[in-house]
Amino acid sequence: MTVDLVFEDGLIPVIAQDTESGRVLMFAYASPDAVEQTEQTGLAHYYSRSRDELWQKGATSGHVQHVEEIRVDCDGDALLYEVDQEGGACHTGYESCFYRTVEETVAREDASIAVSTTETGEQLFDPDEVYE
Amino acid sequence: MTVDLVFEDGLIPVIAQDTESGRVLMFAYASPDAVEQTEQTGLAHYYSRSRDELWQKGATSGHVQHVEEIRVDCDGDALLYEVDQEGGACHTGYESCFYRTVEETVAREDASIAVSTTETGEQLFDPDEVYE
Repeated sequence: MTVDLVFEDGLIPVIAQDTESGRVLMFAYASPDAVEQTEQTGLAHYYSRSRDELWQKGATSGHVQHVEEIRVDCDGDALLYEVDQEGGACHTGYESCFYRTVEETVAREDASIAVSTTETGEQLFDPDEVYE
Repeated sequence: MTVDLVFEDGLIPVIAQDTESGRVLMFAYASPDAVEQTEQTGLAHYYSRSRDELWQKGATSGHVQHVEEIRVDCDGDALLYEVDQEGGACHTGYESCFYRTVEETVAREDASIAVSTTETGEQLFDPDEVYE
């Protein structure tokens, strides 16, 4: 079955999951080029909205993601990279970017909210040693 | 640690993962109200961009998500709901919305891309019987 991918403002949301641990590692966005390069090289590529550029995960840190499978959702507007992660996925040194568990939500006056959290993830490396 | 959640156009991306199978079930968005109601009721709430309304997952189908844990990512701009899913998460009847595996990417002339896929997920129910 052929699925047209839906890019919103040129990007599609991507979830990366570790195939071995099953942990959700990170959430990011991909451009059409990033999806194509991921499929062709077997290494996870994303699009950095803050740096406005195509980005191979691990290009600086060496913490690359070997993509074993790409999955697409029912509406064709989100992707799931099933990966074998070298090192940690998060730039903070944690295995997963989702290393904090929400204890409580705190309503703000501007109708936004904050959350109190506890750290429940495992820090694998010192970011100061990996990123200069 | 208190984390200010980042809402873009009033919404934050949410990934739902099944705690038992470890499968990523779906990707959606939540408003501040949706996050608060999720935390307070223990049932997953989202914000539907197409219907422009707060939405309790399973309100129509009965396929509710009992949220065992909410996690927040390093930048405070994405959430992970760890859930116990009743029935299937996807409106197509599949356990997960990510029931298709990408075989190949196909470049389109408009710089977008399509993907050829195979179905690798399990269909749990007939959507015609659940949604009228």
